[in-house]
Amino acid sequence: MTASTVQGRDPASLRRHNLRTLLRHLHLQGATSRVRLGEVTGLTRSTIADLVGELAERGLAVETGSSRPQSGRGRPPMIVSPREETAYVLAVSVDVDTIGIGRVGLGGTLLEESEARHERGPGDPAASVSQLVRLIHAEVEPFEHAPLAVGIAVPGLVRAEDGVVTRAPNLGWRELNLAERLRDELRFTGPIVIGNEARLAALAEHRRGAGRDCADLVYVSAGVGVGGGIVTHDRLLTGSTGYAGEVGHMITNPGGRSCHCGGRGCWETEIGADALLSQVGVVAPTNRHTALEELFAGAERSDPEVLEAFRRMCPPVAVGLANLVNVFDPRRVLLGGWLRLMLRHTGEELRTALDQLRGLPELPADLRTARFGEQGRLLGAAEAAVSGFLAELR
Amino acid sequence: MTASTVQGRDPASLRRHNLRTLLRHLHLQGATSRVRLGEVTGLTRSTIADLVGELAERGLAVETGSSRPQSGRGRPPMIVSPREETAYVLAVSVDVDTIGIGRVGLGGTLLEESEARHERGPGDPAASVSQLVRLIHAEVEPFEHAPLAVGIAVPGLVRAEDGVVTRAPNLGWRELNLAERLRDELRFTGPIVIGNEARLAALAEHRRGAGRDCADLVYVSAGVGVGGGIVTHDRLLTGSTGYAGEVGHMITNPGGRSCHCGGRGCWETEIGADALLSQVGVVAPTNRHTALEELFAGAERSDPEVLEAFRRMCPPVAVGLANLVNVFDPRRVLLGGWLRLMLRHTGEELRTALDQLRGLPELPADLRTARFGEQGRLLGAAEAAVSGFLAELR
Repeated sequence: MTASTVQGRDPASLRRHNLRTLLRHLHLQGATSRVRLGEVTGLTRSTIADLVGELAERGLAVETGSSRPQSGRGRPPMIVSPREETAYVLAVSVDVDTIGIGRVGLGGTLLEESEARHERGPGDPAASVSQLVRLIHAEVEPFEHAPLAVGIAVPGLVRAEDGVVTRAPNLGWRELNLAERLRDELRFTGPIVIGNEARLAALAEHRRGAGRDCADLVYVSAGVGVGGGIVTHDRLLTGSTGYAGEVGHMITNPGGRSCHCGGRGCWETEIGADALLSQVGVVAPTNRHTALEELFAGAERSDPEVLEAFRRMCPPVAVGLANLVNVFDPRRVLLGGWLRLMLRHTGEELRTALDQLRGLPELPADLRTARFGEQGRLLGAAEAAVSGFLAELR
Repeated sequence: MTASTVQGRDPASLRRHNLRTLLRHLHLQGATSRVRLGEVTGLTRSTIADLVGELAERGLAVETGSSRPQSGRGRPPMIVSPREETAYVLAVSVDVDTIGIGRVGLGGTLLEESEARHERGPGDPAASVSQLVRLIHAEVEPFEHAPLAVGIAVPGLVRAEDGVVTRAPNLGWRELNLAERLRDELRFTGPIVIGNEARLAALAEHRRGAGRDCADLVYVSAGVGVGGGIVTHDRLLTGSTGYAGEVGHMITNPGGRSCHCGGRGCWETEIGADALLSQVGVVAPTNRHTALEELFAGAERSDPEVLEAFRRMCPPVAVGLANLVNVFDPRRVLLGGWLRLMLRHTGEELRTALDQLRGLPELPADLRTARFGEQGRLLGAAEAAVSGFLAELR
């Protein structure tokens, strides 16, 4: 009679379920004693020993400490750890100008990462797919073991049902089955999980970052566009088709400027890159990313013009945050992208703007900077990959 | 080894857990054969027989059909049903002008309901509390059995932690521990559950109404104010303090009119009673409820002036709906209050307004009328009461 015994399952299915439970625990909590694994799963000592044996055999976990069944006084307990040198996932973050790639061990450690310039073709994803294949091969080649799974963060809508990137406006992608294309070219049979970058960054914050202890959190990140990810009841909100969290397309200024999405007055048009840059007099820059980088550098050295731009952006940023707080009642609101800089440099003004707009002080509006910067997407992709691996574990 | 066996529980606790599982099933699914109960819970035939025996003894369930352990051909199976004449909850819906009260049997049937004029004192809840006590006594007195629990829907913020009504602007209540006040005066020891009326109406729609098969739904109701309730992953969204779903206080018109909440440009100021009434030339009516009733009657007889008012309200209604769809990606959006009339009479215009505003057609915006009208709050209060009863079942 244990939490891990599930009705109507055959022994093989039950064993998989138990292996998954153990691995999930090791991944999220790290090294754990056999005794503790027994407490957590409710499984008997011999079942734990047996399962840990299988995990070790499969290169997924490693055990240290005494192997005597009854450890005497002072004898070290048996500690089970994820074996990250052989059990790792590949995480990829596709952005407009760059592609980030990294190996993340079971347990969540980023073992190494690199970045390449994204060699995009105009509108056609073929060049991107080829480059992804090359980068993934190069990353994996030095290692004897294949990754357990691949996770890829993209700046676009990803349909939950089949992982298809239905729309990635800044990449010019539409209805792209990226996983299928990669699977064919990579000849990789493990799970390939595709996700929206902001949702994945939210997942990383929830599992490993500034939202680790929060069952209900809202994550908002502003860069060129505005993305978000929401955790409710300790789960990443997916919605009915996988698109939940499109906070950038809340309409915060009806009758405002047209948005690239086809709508009008979206939060993204009010606080996105163009809106921010126009505050420092930069209109239609040749390279938005470079212009943003310069602005961010200005913020870091407390350039008065940049700080004034942040100040002027506080009210429109606060409108969207107020909406999210009133709708979700999150324990914490995590700010990513340049909103981290805004909170750091003009946090008081942002909080004041939010207080002036909002009439419901009962709902807490605890604004915090996200723990991870650019890395959040990569770490989130890794988390999604691990989840994909666990779901398909045989 | 069953789904209902839970690690680390003592036999008494396990038995309560199993009783709860059976009762929850009977409440939501109605009459069920013993065989099916076994399949659903994974419990053995003899355990089911034993538990059903206890439920019958406690007046919670009743059994019909053959009692032979091995029923032969053509013999009717043993059917277990909730026993609503002895197992019922009391549901109360407190509104500005009225108090509704009803008995709802385990299984969800509204056995009877009545309505009284709400005799409020100015700002002081004492008169309301006294009236509630009288109404509840009168409702229960004719019956031998006390209710299993009492559920009360209020138009205000209710803190999840302790059930305190922190703010009910239209009633003038603040920090009112209604459950405690009632418990003292009623001398009722069962659970008294307080909830926000719109959240409870959403719960009723999810369990028994137009959202029964929807894991992700948004419910919005417009009356004097605008309320909402959200279901994600098959659970009513509570947020960190219980206030999630304050959709009426999304800011949909920054710089717009002041809202009674203290904010500005809230959706409620844009589409609430005053905004709607002003569309038919009624400004600052002496009785908003009567004025609204007249307007609704006009809609029912397709009064052109009222339909034109609905048409003009479509764009501001659509702004808030667009935000909710983009953030939650719900499978369905259920409209209550006068939004039901709007959808029925000017649904095409509303859908067009929504399509024109929204730039993300990938996210479905399936607008439907809520199944329950005013009764939704009462039925939701009953559902919350049953949940409260099950949670405290000993």
